[in-house]
Amino acid sequence: MTITGKRRIAVQVLLLGISVLGLACRPGGEDSMPAAQDSVAESSPPALPSWNNGAAKQAIVDFVARVTDPANPDFVPEAERIAVFDNDGTLWSERPVYFQLFFAIDRVKALAADHPEWKEKQPFKGVLEGDLEAVAATGEHGLLELVMASHTGMTTTEFEQIVKEWLATARHPELDRPYTELVYQPMLEVLDYLRAHGFKAYIVSGGGIEFMRPWVEEVYGVSPEQVVGSSVNTKFEVRNGEPVLVRIPEIDFINDKEGKPVGINSHIGRRPIAAFGNSDGDFQMLEWTTAGDGSRLGVIVHHTDAEREWAYDRDSHVGRLDRGLDEAAERGWVLVDMKSDWTTVYPD
Amino acid sequence: MTITGKRRIAVQVLLLGISVLGLACRPGGEDSMPAAQDSVAESSPPALPSWNNGAAKQAIVDFVARVTDPANPDFVPEAERIAVFDNDGTLWSERPVYFQLFFAIDRVKALAADHPEWKEKQPFKGVLEGDLEAVAATGEHGLLELVMASHTGMTTTEFEQIVKEWLATARHPELDRPYTELVYQPMLEVLDYLRAHGFKAYIVSGGGIEFMRPWVEEVYGVSPEQVVGSSVNTKFEVRNGEPVLVRIPEIDFINDKEGKPVGINSHIGRRPIAAFGNSDGDFQMLEWTTAGDGSRLGVIVHHTDAEREWAYDRDSHVGRLDRGLDEAAERGWVLVDMKSDWTTVYPD
Repeated sequence: MTITGKRRIAVQVLLLGISVLGLACRPGGEDSMPAAQDSVAESSPPALPSWNNGAAKQAIVDFVARVTDPANPDFVPEAERIAVFDNDGTLWSERPVYFQLFFAIDRVKALAADHPEWKEKQPFKGVLEGDLEAVAATGEHGLLELVMASHTGMTTTEFEQIVKEWLATARHPELDRPYTELVYQPMLEVLDYLRAHGFKAYIVSGGGIEFMRPWVEEVYGVSPEQVVGSSVNTKFEVRNGEPVLVRIPEIDFINDKEGKPVGINSHIGRRPIAAFGNSDGDFQMLEWTTAGDGSRLGVIVHHTDAEREWAYDRDSHVGRLDRGLDEAAERGWVLVDMKSDWTTVYPD
Repeated sequence: MTITGKRRIAVQVLLLGISVLGLACRPGGEDSMPAAQDSVAESSPPALPSWNNGAAKQAIVDFVARVTDPANPDFVPEAERIAVFDNDGTLWSERPVYFQLFFAIDRVKALAADHPEWKEKQPFKGVLEGDLEAVAATGEHGLLELVMASHTGMTTTEFEQIVKEWLATARHPELDRPYTELVYQPMLEVLDYLRAHGFKAYIVSGGGIEFMRPWVEEVYGVSPEQVVGSSVNTKFEVRNGEPVLVRIPEIDFINDKEGKPVGINSHIGRRPIAAFGNSDGDFQMLEWTTAGDGSRLGVIVHHTDAEREWAYDRDSHVGRLDRGLDEAAERGWVLVDMKSDWTTVYPD
């Protein structure tokens, strides 16, 4: 179990996440749900019905019109219409911490009966006793132990089943809803809208590629092939005549920041023409995407809605958005103001 | 520049290749080309016209009929109809050595003017003087130097252009045809046939992923997204305000043998239902594919045609097929006999 270089950064982000697990609170209470839909009265064209008419929606619609019109100099053939979407904070919520961290914690609890030694050993002891400050105190190494204990040691087929079962029963600790209901309705509409116009949508997330694949088809309509994410190494073995891929406790790739263009190149092999993110972890993905020739679309979802979701940017421990806010205008990227641009946040 | 573990194996294969560069000869002369088409007289149904009616063709057609018939218990929904194809020796020829090695050699020659030191330094000196025995004598380390010098140091965009330009002008040293004409007509028909039945075809090759992507769409109709291959690491940089991905001299992944199921899982995230290979480097890919539930298809192209292509298997330095020959029958894999199953080898 080793960790070096850029991998440190990602683990630090996770660590910051867990360090506030016990402290974080959602500014708006659950009683502010469901969304107020304060703009439903205005005329809603069929495209992007949960988007208020405004600069953000217009920029998306205009871009799609340009690249799909064969008479337009910016026309892009269908095969090259690749759009990439960050997941945490862009397609679903990410507060108080990345949902995958809740998975790791729940998984450690589920496995505890087989690991009596965890009762006395941090960071597991802290997880089992609900003492997340003690977990955080174990630092980067402790967090990596937690992730590896919960995400490796099984076959890929077993892990897929574990993720599916967890998602079918787990509920967000503050909102008391299944995590898969905490997806953004306006972004589901963007996915549909782009696909209806011949785009192929990929998820490009710092989250685990095999944590996402089991459910993204049902939730987002994105096939498992179209997921790029962080990964552990896997090893091919034949067990009792059956070939298996075993997830082993080594980080293979961290798909965040400078890693996102690398992951895109590795998995897709084409430069996208549209990219949607929400944090500075997506900066290089938007930079790479929008530096290509022709018309390009870069979109940042800005979390401005403390009533219906959460409001955060520059100082956030999760989904920090700082450089993106400073440079969006000069780079021609679209800033989506969740509070004013979206008529609703989550699906009904 | 480091090389460890399974990476050694792949380099050794390459090394074996280069060691016979000066020695290898094609059993049949060029005058035996084009293919004799000795079976054109028999009745040709529209599907797979360059395949003689026989067990191999029947197995492919029967499999496709089963998995695409909604009334059949083996029916597979379209989204799960993933077929994987090895490239070297399965979709195009691989003699006297993998064509990518010719690319490396031509590239070193093209770069020599900028590297006067290469005149005195092996393995470059050997390449420039046509002394391939001297190249081989530099061993694994020397060959890796050759690959890295020819495949890294440039941006991904530059490399794509270099590959395209090479393929547009390079010709096979014995057959005197562009490499992209040395693809197997019967396999092009399999690709078309599967796609016509709702399959998504992926190339899963030990060759470089970025060596293949620039041309597979035009030659095979396979999009760059659907290529899995070996890779070097890339690094994101911003140069004069322009984001680039630089190919650096570190091996990232070798997509061969046990690596193929790993690469498939990483890039596709679904288990294929059909796999086509030709050598023991494809064994685990076929094993992984055909171990899945329901109807599965494993196909090995056996190089039996010394007249129209090359004949080789157990003792070959390239495309060695030994275990696959021994176990195909018991595993239910289809052995394609190129000589008797194919009416033609290359496209006209």
